[in-house]
Amino acid sequence: MNLGKQKNSSKVGTPPGELIYTGKLEPSKAIINVVSYDQHTYNIRENVDPDFLKTLDKNKIHWIDFENVSDPDKLTSIGEIFNIHKLTMEDIINVNQRTKIEFYDSYTFLVLKIISDSNEKLEFRQFSMIIKENILISFSEEKNFATKWLKTQLESNAGDIRNKDLGYLTFSLMDIVVDSYFSKLSNYISYTQEIDEKITEDIEEELFIKIKKIKQEILRFRRFVAPLKDILFQMQKKEKGIVNEKNQIYFNDLYDHTIRISESIDLLRENLNNLTEIYLSIASNRLNEIMRILTIISTIFIPLTFIAGIYGMNFENMPELHWRFGYFLILGIMATIAVIMIIIFKKKKWF
Amino acid sequence: MNLGKQKNSSKVGTPPGELIYTGKLEPSKAIINVVSYDQHTYNIRENVDPDFLKTLDKNKIHWIDFENVSDPDKLTSIGEIFNIHKLTMEDIINVNQRTKIEFYDSYTFLVLKIISDSNEKLEFRQFSMIIKENILISFSEEKNFATKWLKTQLESNAGDIRNKDLGYLTFSLMDIVVDSYFSKLSNYISYTQEIDEKITEDIEEELFIKIKKIKQEILRFRRFVAPLKDILFQMQKKEKGIVNEKNQIYFNDLYDHTIRISESIDLLRENLNNLTEIYLSIASNRLNEIMRILTIISTIFIPLTFIAGIYGMNFENMPELHWRFGYFLILGIMATIAVIMIIIFKKKKWF
Amino acid sequence: MNLGKQKNSSKVGTPPGELIYTGKLEPSKAIINVVSYDQHTYNIRENVDPDFLKTLDKNKIHWIDFENVSDPDKLTSIGEIFNIHKLTMEDIINVNQRTKIEFYDSYTFLVLKIISDSNEKLEFRQFSMIIKENILISFSEEKNFATKWLKTQLESNAGDIRNKDLGYLTFSLMDIVVDSYFSKLSNYISYTQEIDEKITEDIEEELFIKIKKIKQEILRFRRFVAPLKDILFQMQKKEKGIVNEKNQIYFNDLYDHTIRISESIDLLRENLNNLTEIYLSIASNRLNEIMRILTIISTIFIPLTFIAGIYGMNFENMPELHWRFGYFLILGIMATIAVIMIIIFKKKKWF
Amino acid sequence: MNLGKQKNSSKVGTPPGELIYTGKLEPSKAIINVVSYDQHTYNIRENVDPDFLKTLDKNKIHWIDFENVSDPDKLTSIGEIFNIHKLTMEDIINVNQRTKIEFYDSYTFLVLKIISDSNEKLEFRQFSMIIKENILISFSEEKNFATKWLKTQLESNAGDIRNKDLGYLTFSLMDIVVDSYFSKLSNYISYTQEIDEKITEDIEEELFIKIKKIKQEILRFRRFVAPLKDILFQMQKKEKGIVNEKNQIYFNDLYDHTIRISESIDLLRENLNNLTEIYLSIASNRLNEIMRILTIISTIFIPLTFIAGIYGMNFENMPELHWRFGYFLILGIMATIAVIMIIIFKKKKWF
Amino acid sequence: MNLGKQKNSSKVGTPPGELIYTGKLEPSKAIINVVSYDQHTYNIRENVDPDFLKTLDKNKIHWIDFENVSDPDKLTSIGEIFNIHKLTMEDIINVNQRTKIEFYDSYTFLVLKIISDSNEKLEFRQFSMIIKENILISFSEEKNFATKWLKTQLESNAGDIRNKDLGYLTFSLMDIVVDSYFSKLSNYISYTQEIDEKITEDIEEELFIKIKKIKQEILRFRRFVAPLKDILFQMQKKEKGIVNEKNQIYFNDLYDHTIRISESIDLLRENLNNLTEIYLSIASNRLNEIMRILTIISTIFIPLTFIAGIYGMNFENMPELHWRFGYFLILGIMATIAVIMIIIFKKKKWF
Repeated sequence: MNLGKQKNSSKVGTPPGELIYTGKLEPSKAIINVVSYDQHTYNIRENVDPDFLKTLDKNKIHWIDFENVSDPDKLTSIGEIFNIHKLTMEDIINVNQRTKIEFYDSYTFLVLKIISDSNEKLEFRQFSMIIKENILISFSEEKNFATKWLKTQLESNAGDIRNKDLGYLTFSLMDIVVDSYFSKLSNYISYTQEIDEKITEDIEEELFIKIKKIKQEILRFRRFVAPLKDILFQMQKKEKGIVNEKNQIYFNDLYDHTIRISESIDLLRENLNNLTEIYLSIASNRLNEIMRILTIISTIFIPLTFIAGIYGMNFENMPELHWRFGYFLILGIMATIAVIMIIIFKKKKWF
Repeated sequence: MNLGKQKNSSKVGTPPGELIYTGKLEPSKAIINVVSYDQHTYNIRENVDPDFLKTLDKNKIHWIDFENVSDPDKLTSIGEIFNIHKLTMEDIINVNQRTKIEFYDSYTFLVLKIISDSNEKLEFRQFSMIIKENILISFSEEKNFATKWLKTQLESNAGDIRNKDLGYLTFSLMDIVVDSYFSKLSNYISYTQEIDEKITEDIEEELFIKIKKIKQEILRFRRFVAPLKDILFQMQKKEKGIVNEKNQIYFNDLYDHTIRISESIDLLRENLNNLTEIYLSIASNRLNEIMRILTIISTIFIPLTFIAGIYGMNFENMPELHWRFGYFLILGIMATIAVIMIIIFKKKKWF
Repeated sequence: MNLGKQKNSSKVGTPPGELIYTGKLEPSKAIINVVSYDQHTYNIRENVDPDFLKTLDKNKIHWIDFENVSDPDKLTSIGEIFNIHKLTMEDIINVNQRTKIEFYDSYTFLVLKIISDSNEKLEFRQFSMIIKENILISFSEEKNFATKWLKTQLESNAGDIRNKDLGYLTFSLMDIVVDSYFSKLSNYISYTQEIDEKITEDIEEELFIKIKKIKQEILRFRRFVAPLKDILFQMQKKEKGIVNEKNQIYFNDLYDHTIRISESIDLLRENLNNLTEIYLSIASNRLNEIMRILTIISTIFIPLTFIAGIYGMNFENMPELHWRFGYFLILGIMATIAVIMIIIFKKKKWF
Repeated sequence: MNLGKQKNSSKVGTPPGELIYTGKLEPSKAIINVVSYDQHTYNIRENVDPDFLKTLDKNKIHWIDFENVSDPDKLTSIGEIFNIHKLTMEDIINVNQRTKIEFYDSYTFLVLKIISDSNEKLEFRQFSMIIKENILISFSEEKNFATKWLKTQLESNAGDIRNKDLGYLTFSLMDIVVDSYFSKLSNYISYTQEIDEKITEDIEEELFIKIKKIKQEILRFRRFVAPLKDILFQMQKKEKGIVNEKNQIYFNDLYDHTIRISESIDLLRENLNNLTEIYLSIASNRLNEIMRILTIISTIFIPLTFIAGIYGMNFENMPELHWRFGYFLILGIMATIAVIMIIIFKKKKWF
Repeated sequence: MNLGKQKNSSKVGTPPGELIYTGKLEPSKAIINVVSYDQHTYNIRENVDPDFLKTLDKNKIHWIDFENVSDPDKLTSIGEIFNIHKLTMEDIINVNQRTKIEFYDSYTFLVLKIISDSNEKLEFRQFSMIIKENILISFSEEKNFATKWLKTQLESNAGDIRNKDLGYLTFSLMDIVVDSYFSKLSNYISYTQEIDEKITEDIEEELFIKIKKIKQEILRFRRFVAPLKDILFQMQKKEKGIVNEKNQIYFNDLYDHTIRISESIDLLRENLNNLTEIYLSIASNRLNEIMRILTIISTIFIPLTFIAGIYGMNFENMPELHWRFGYFLILGIMATIAVIMIIIFKKKKWF
């Protein structure tokens, strides 16, 4: 169970606005890449100095890819250059934010959670964006598939992306993140289906714990997906924001995807609950069957043993002992009793 | 458990708008049929070429029945002829959409789920419609009962359908889909009633799993039915759309049906939960009864066996052994003990 | 478990508007009775011909009591005379409608569910009304207590009913239906109280199944009661409808009753759930107690039997066997062991 | 379980407005007391005749305390004098009303539930009020703490009550009722705490049933408390009603109390659910521990008894029997087996 | 389980507005400290006389820190000096209030709950504030971390606090309280994670009770956190109140924190429920495994013991007894039976 580390308790009492990285990664130097383009030109500059960002051409679209938010110095520089409020800066480096959007006078601030691809376990990294005039700044905790993919898209001008506006660029980043949710979720779904298929054969305690673990991960998942719907709704309501008439259809599509994810999560949860109940019922049935059979065996032999005990007694005067076929008679009686008991139990459908 | 295949993970990272079929059927050539009619004329043209669709008479109502959406080429042709947005085209061929309606400037796009009649198991196929001016285009994954039925209706002019407008045609298709939900659901209901009737007699693990399986299918069902209510509400709100004064009463009726289906689903779920509890309780009762009886049998014989054991001991000096009727006395004592125990257990209502 | 028969699967594919009776009763000839009154006059005509209805006086209030909706011919006549939409007619004869109200231009259509008094089991019959100008038409599946009661009321002018308007007449019918819910519900409540009182004494499987059956019936009940609140709300909102200033207070009272019924149903459900848990807990406690006692008995005798077994061995050299009081010593030891075990178990509060 | 007696089934079919007492108390003669005051004067008249009420001074505030609503005659007199609608009168004497408020043109009608102090068990009595111009009429089923307290308050002019308006008088009565809820609820809370503290020591079936009983009483409690919030909200919304600028702060305080009660009830329910689970878990753990220990004892002795049985056999040729120390060897082997089994069970942490 | 002591039952019947301390601490003398500052000056006066507060400079910001609300005399003085309504005063000293905000004409009243740092167990103390013009008065039940921290902040002018307005001062106090919730909650989270990690190894009853206890504390927690969201929303809506354009961003941040806390609480609850189920399942699995093994051991030996019993019988004519290798034959048969049973049980996967 991982609830996301909470705001560090050592942070209690520090004045708001201080930049302390709260993520799980080793802090490392930030890398700033800038992709600039318009319909005619395209160029990428890697690992630039923050000061370079002061000279960006107002007529092009710029995507500033800020990697490793654990570097407070470069982050501060960026904040000063683009006039970002210190509380926003704090939210970027304190990576325990909720999925959320905030509209400031001069910029929009968006926080997403991206699935870490550097790790087997399900881990989320914070992925935040600032959209300001002709500039999109993305902040990531580490190298990730989303920015890598966007760079390829821009370079190859896939989907005519370079002829579209900043809103479409924002959409592209959000879309790749949501798509990755789909693919992770479909893993859980197919894994659940596997469990569902083998649950009637193979009842082990591990299976139960696996079901529960998936459920816990699904809960975390939902936590990051649930606010997306509201965020997209707010983005559309804002008058002259990122969403406009031309790209609205794409955001609608994205909205549709988030609803599908939410529904799949809900359905998956109900199915996991169902599986839990099936598991518990089968497990208890299996055990009960064993206990029943064993108890029946004992019950058949106990009266017989008693009879044997009778004739093992050492009384002087026990006439049966001297009968010629007493022994065989008793054996016969015992067999008869056993058979009768078995017939009764069979009739009562006890086994 | 089948949650509907999710957006293919291999699709992550492709630009939006690419046409890839994601359904479970074998891709096959599309077939396009056109039914054209007004109050006086009626004709049907089967397996036409997409180009034919450019020449449709503006004064008649046309229903274009597009079968096998797995054919991206013909789909693209259709999309170009009727000027459909590429995201809509993607939603038609990517058959994992939710039940939904989308209003575009020049057309309305509607996605339903139709129960496949080519399969024993409950499977849903996507059934989408585009309504544009005097034309209704329906897209199906395979031949299905809904389009077959509509063709018969139109040919025989049942319910005076040829004298009514495009909205009524749309209603007819939606209505036959919803009616098929009713009939499927009533199967589940009567099946559940059967289980309900025999649950007190026949307690088997399979019964429990059947109950759970029905519940899972019901959950999938609900997922496709739930949005219908909202869709019909939106259709009525739209100013000059498919629903108008003349046919509103039919859509109201349809709305009423969807509510009844939702209610039946909810009631069915509660009943299935009830059955689950009854099953578990009866199953545990049965077992408990068996164990109790068996334990009582053991408990009666164990003290008797002990007594027999006593007189099986080989001590030299055991006076009772030499008593004349020692053996019969002990047998009598044993019988007495057994009877007393049985009386006590009976009094305590232990069996 | 009875979920109400669903729209007949054989109806799938028939055009809307066809009149097929879907109830459980044997179809029979319809009977039409007309009660006409104003402040000064009152007369009742039984079993009239539909054509008679064309001649009704516009200045009186008329209540047309249509019995046995399973007669499509007379129903069609009525529909034509009063110009009722064919979908409304279908809803009258297809008796699987929800409790609902529909406002048409020239009339209001109301569907209630009435408890059948011809049957021991809880069964609901559809009871629909059309209110049009000065006429109230009620449609019932069979003779029932509600129309019988209303006739008596009108004849005796109880509560000055003949001096009041059509709205009050409508209220009277709705009120008697809701009152019958109260009385049925109070049966369930007192039955549940009985179970509650004897549950600690008498734990039988049947009790559990009874609790569950009541819960299922309550679920059906709720389904028909729940929409009433909304219906009454809609009736009041309608500008110049059935509810007016003079009779509003009565409809408010009715509204209050429906809320009380809903609350009682909710409370009853929670109590039934509570009883389920109590039942399961007591049942398992009872069994556990039995098993514990029996196991304790076995546990005490098993070591003693072992000791007896020891001295039943036939070794040549077993010195104890030759001791003079060996036998009595061993008996003493056995008694001591038994007493010690009993003391230990008592101390551990095992019995 | 007590759900409050429902509207008497014998009442089904009576016209609305008939005055029949439906409470549990013995009907008895009504007593009418009148307290009249303004800033300067104060007097109380006990057991007055209804006719006296026609002469009340318009310039004073009057509180009419009507005790024993089971007296339909005096109730009718009151209704006529103050022109109360007969449905209101019915709600006063039919004491199964919900907690509610109704605004009539000339008066406001308020129904509360008061905890009976004449009974050990939790019973609620209906306590209704009519507020009309300068008069507050309270109707109670029997003598109760609320009216007794208010009389004392007025007599001693505690809290300067005689200088305040009719709204404050109403508030005072509602406040004492809500306060009594607090005190009853705190009983339940401390009782639950007691159970919580001793639950780990003392596991008895009665404890479980007690928890369930409290939960049932809490459910009834909530039913009467829940509507209070809404009632207070409606009282404030009404333009020129009981609540005005001067006393609004008191009603706000009352509103706050009702929310606190609701929250406490919810918290209490969750805690009771928690306790149920803890109880069931501990109870099953206790039993399991006993069964485990007993089974271990049996399991150790059964193989030993078998060995003893071997050497109790009477075969002629059993060499071990003739060994000199055969007996002691076997005893040693038995001891060894027992010790080994104990060690194994210990290692597996079975006891 | 601690639900917070309820309004004392001895308070029932006292007129509203009386000052009685209802907390758990020993009443003690109140201490009043005043911190006054503007951009240029700063001074703190400790343990001042209430009368001093009449002379406060209107142009500075004053924070009056009132410690130990259990002192009704000084509280009354404060109330009179600042013209606080007696119901507000009552809410300050009756420390069982909900987390709430109330807007009065001349001041705003805010009630928070602060975690007591003088105690190991989770206990909440009431922490209320009155904001009036340029003055913030905080009332605490005892010395606490929040006021201590604020004093340090003001003294060191951390975060430029002395140059900001009264709203920011209010925010600072609320923020430190919410931060302390975070840190307490993260304790619960890490504690839950510990349990989660060791639950598969170490199944003890205590573990279960611990899980339940955490859940109960979480429930109490939520009760105090839940209303915060609404409070912050109301503070923003108020036209010219504490929140203004300059400090709104800080309150937004605080709002964000409260949502994160709520979400964490919800997630934690679901995880605790999950753990409960895992615990119960593992515990029952462990026991079942033990019982199964033990029962298998018994079942194997019981038939063998029966055979031994047979040949322990003392019949005269038992031919097997005289066979030369009868004994060894029987031993062999017994071994064979045992081996066959073990093989069967193994094959059925019973152990």
